[in-house]
Amino acid sequence: MRWSQLYAPTLRQDPADAEAASHRLLVRAGFVRQLMAGHYSLLPLAVRVRTKVIEVIREEMARIGAQEFVLPAMHPADLWRRSGRWEAMGEEMFRLADRRGADVALGMTHEEVIASVAAELGSYRQLPQLWYQFQTKFRDEPRPRSGLIRVREFTMKDSYSLDLDEAGLDRSFDLHHGAYRRIFERLGIPAIAVEASSGNMGGSDSVEFMCPSEAGEDLVVRCPAGDYAANVEKAVSRLAPVADGPGPDEPERFDTPHARTIEELTVQHGVPADRQIKTLVYVLDGRLTLVLMRGDHALVEQKLADATGAVAVRPAHPEEIVDALGAHPGSLGAVTATLPAGHDLPVLADEALRGRRDMTTGANTDGVHVRGVDIARDIAVERWADLREVRAGEPCPRCGHALEVVSAIEVGHIFKLGRRYTEALGVRVLGPDGSKITPIMGSYGIGVERAIAAIVESHHDEAGIVWPVGVGPFDVAVVLLNPGDEATRSAAEEIYRTLGAAGAEVILDDRDERPGAKFKDVELIGIPYRVTVGKRGVDAGTVEIRTRATGEDATVPIAEAAGHVAELLKG
Amino acid sequence: MRWSQLYAPTLRQDPADAEAASHRLLVRAGFVRQLMAGHYSLLPLAVRVRTKVIEVIREEMARIGAQEFVLPAMHPADLWRRSGRWEAMGEEMFRLADRRGADVALGMTHEEVIASVAAELGSYRQLPQLWYQFQTKFRDEPRPRSGLIRVREFTMKDSYSLDLDEAGLDRSFDLHHGAYRRIFERLGIPAIAVEASSGNMGGSDSVEFMCPSEAGEDLVVRCPAGDYAANVEKAVSRLAPVADGPGPDEPERFDTPHARTIEELTVQHGVPADRQIKTLVYVLDGRLTLVLMRGDHALVEQKLADATGAVAVRPAHPEEIVDALGAHPGSLGAVTATLPAGHDLPVLADEALRGRRDMTTGANTDGVHVRGVDIARDIAVERWADLREVRAGEPCPRCGHALEVVSAIEVGHIFKLGRRYTEALGVRVLGPDGSKITPIMGSYGIGVERAIAAIVESHHDEAGIVWPVGVGPFDVAVVLLNPGDEATRSAAEEIYRTLGAAGAEVILDDRDERPGAKFKDVELIGIPYRVTVGKRGVDAGTVEIRTRATGEDATVPIAEAAGHVAELLKG
Repeated sequence: MRWSQLYAPTLRQDPADAEAASHRLLVRAGFVRQLMAGHYSLLPLAVRVRTKVIEVIREEMARIGAQEFVLPAMHPADLWRRSGRWEAMGEEMFRLADRRGADVALGMTHEEVIASVAAELGSYRQLPQLWYQFQTKFRDEPRPRSGLIRVREFTMKDSYSLDLDEAGLDRSFDLHHGAYRRIFERLGIPAIAVEASSGNMGGSDSVEFMCPSEAGEDLVVRCPAGDYAANVEKAVSRLAPVADGPGPDEPERFDTPHARTIEELTVQHGVPADRQIKTLVYVLDGRLTLVLMRGDHALVEQKLADATGAVAVRPAHPEEIVDALGAHPGSLGAVTATLPAGHDLPVLADEALRGRRDMTTGANTDGVHVRGVDIARDIAVERWADLREVRAGEPCPRCGHALEVVSAIEVGHIFKLGRRYTEALGVRVLGPDGSKITPIMGSYGIGVERAIAAIVESHHDEAGIVWPVGVGPFDVAVVLLNPGDEATRSAAEEIYRTLGAAGAEVILDDRDERPGAKFKDVELIGIPYRVTVGKRGVDAGTVEIRTRATGEDATVPIAEAAGHVAELLKG
Repeated sequence: MRWSQLYAPTLRQDPADAEAASHRLLVRAGFVRQLMAGHYSLLPLAVRVRTKVIEVIREEMARIGAQEFVLPAMHPADLWRRSGRWEAMGEEMFRLADRRGADVALGMTHEEVIASVAAELGSYRQLPQLWYQFQTKFRDEPRPRSGLIRVREFTMKDSYSLDLDEAGLDRSFDLHHGAYRRIFERLGIPAIAVEASSGNMGGSDSVEFMCPSEAGEDLVVRCPAGDYAANVEKAVSRLAPVADGPGPDEPERFDTPHARTIEELTVQHGVPADRQIKTLVYVLDGRLTLVLMRGDHALVEQKLADATGAVAVRPAHPEEIVDALGAHPGSLGAVTATLPAGHDLPVLADEALRGRRDMTTGANTDGVHVRGVDIARDIAVERWADLREVRAGEPCPRCGHALEVVSAIEVGHIFKLGRRYTEALGVRVLGPDGSKITPIMGSYGIGVERAIAAIVESHHDEAGIVWPVGVGPFDVAVVLLNPGDEATRSAAEEIYRTLGAAGAEVILDDRDERPGAKFKDVELIGIPYRVTVGKRGVDAGTVEIRTRATGEDATVPIAEAAGHVAELLKG
């Protein structure tokens, strides 16, 4: 195409509100414009990239035998009520009433709709099914930000598998795992597959594909030896064992009038943080619960949700705490003898506290703590769970190497869902023996515009974006420097035609602009190869070919230019 | 693809609730399933057709130099308030509040969003721009029906032109007119271009593309000689002039105790319908208004809206009428002397009443009429307008031939919008002389799924759909009759491979089903050519090729089968 026909409004300055590189560059290079927070208009350059990303995904979906659907974006409330997610989705789901007052939702995801379509399946012989679509998803994010990374409206490739049994689900899951690896590789996204929490999707198992990036909102824990990678919401490490002395025969109260934090207790009373019990109070689906962590450990709320199955998880308000325990945060504890008589507070404890003795914790009296606590003896732990946030430097659970923690963008997520949705929506097929069988489901998603942002996060420099070949809006720019000179123009047109005829994604910069402005635009937009056709070169029978990624220049005879670029494009 | 891998749930029976042929057949042949009223899931067969329809449209949009965008489906209320359509769209627009209470709308159309994106344009040198997208539109239709024909959620190709002046808009409009003709021709939709009302889009001019069909919800008036075609909402005809006698010097009241309708007045009092004035009472944007029609003519409400610019148009309630006029419908009139003193009711009259004398109308007293009415003398008509519904048989306004009226599906609509949206959203560019110029807009739409329905309405028979080549999900079905027979299977596989390699859209029916069931499915789904590969034929070295549209069979040698089909596909 000709640049003079292209609407690509590049900006001279970085947009003021953009922090993430992809946000800044996609706006500045004229790919996107914000309509309102979390909603972007994709301009022609972005649509070209989106089309390519969709085509790569479609090819890989077809390769694993998936069939394309298009399912409604607007859903009847009833479907979501049947799965129990009408409530569970909370404020993140956009809801409205239609002209007749019926409740409808805008789809955040399509498990319920897929299950309702699947209810027509009649026989085990129709399984497995792999169904996918590209469809707009709507999510009322509390904080849309970072350009295309976290938005309220986006295109998702979502797919769903329906299988007769667990072995079938494992196969469908593995097929998707492979397809996702190929998709991200083809798109130039250096994604790593990590163990992840399934969140409110439910199910037994899930894997996220994570693109390391400063702009990422997730933390990934990974072993440098490649043995282990997990979202911090799910990650574990091999903690060094702690040997405690036996301590006193029973806990001892002591006054701590000025110690309200772990650190104050350490400084003022000489109690190391790893010998303290931190007592947190949470409300899990409405029920006040004590959550115990080692003093130097942080809680991961998602682990708390996953361990308990709670849908609504929040820290208790100070008033709720004082009401229940008679003390303020800073002096709380779970030692049975210090709890109000007849209390019904469940106590959850992190695995790192198991077996610990001679520990110190709050006494549920302001300004008082207890020491010499033997957890097994003194605290009625109802449930043990891994609730702890892994930190960089802790040992890999597989090999013991020091773990790294990196921020990353979630670009894909695949789930083994189990039968939650098929049961709720009444999907049953006749089995080989005539019995009714509830199929088992998997669900698999890639956010298309977020994938575009991840590509930019992974491929840019000071001057702009550096698209991998085959992914960006164009692979070659033929820059005509002296449009007024007939010989120069015809040389540029000829190279442009030849490259186009050979199937290259080429743009001819035929604008009446200064060379510097043209070069800057090509760099900013990130076109991998630039063929500069100027009068001086043409008079000498040559053009210049620059590789965006390396900045390397080559001067080649005009007649060889197209062939030279074609070779470069092959990589 | 192989049929055994395809999810195409054909049904033995017609769905009970389907009247339109396209609705019945698309459900029965396994293309679509309803999720809720007005929302359909597109299954793999429908997605294949949709992809082809989109590709045809995309090619024709590219051909006229249009650039593809993807604009948000969710819009801030403010945008719609600025254009004045937040109110005007009424209940047809889905609205909701987000988690922070901000009003948002689901896009019914994108003029406002396009104008807000266009506000970044700076110079006349950037014009014209032709921008388009494929995006889901949401419309809260009062009566979703007829399958894909009238739904609440659908894919639209909407495009918008921005030009410097009227001549530019004319060019952009003509480019779209041509593109739409080519699109519908390529899709096999026998669309006719008709003059249309612009409705709440505003603007000077609009043309609808109409596919004649019993399932259509619009009426098209057209001249059999091809001189004229218009939506009944806009159509005019050349009415025979009526010569009235002068009548009495002033109107005369007479008792009509049993005549409350035009017909009763004719039968009981001998007043022909075309000598009566029918007095309708409407509420236009809240103001009660008298609307006069000739007794034998029907009002077109859209004409009333267009003539007055009213946004909200409804018939008055009986109480409102009695309050204002002191009489009930059946005895109403607009003769000044019969109206309440000091009334402020505007009187609108249809052009067909202009100059009429010696007419009869109600006296605004129940059971009383007046005759001898000279409209110019006795009625204070504030405004004359064409408000009348044209009927079949009336003379063409251009050539006098008797007009036809046919029902039709609106498959496309193109508008000259003027500057309403660019003005409202503050789009201004620098003109050649440095002055600020407000660009002029056009808007152009095709409903993708409705186009699919229109194809089916135009191409089906008793046995099912008959897709035009290149539009349906597959162009050839290779039906393997005896999957157990090795020679038969390998002959079928070879024909399937050869056709696929040659680029044909071919499906191999490798299912373990009875031949009759396979043939029925191929016919129902509407695949244009069927290659039947059975043991008896293969033993004789032949296969049978059937043309779906004509039912013609040809027996050809196996080796020539693929070539024979390729010839047929060329058409």
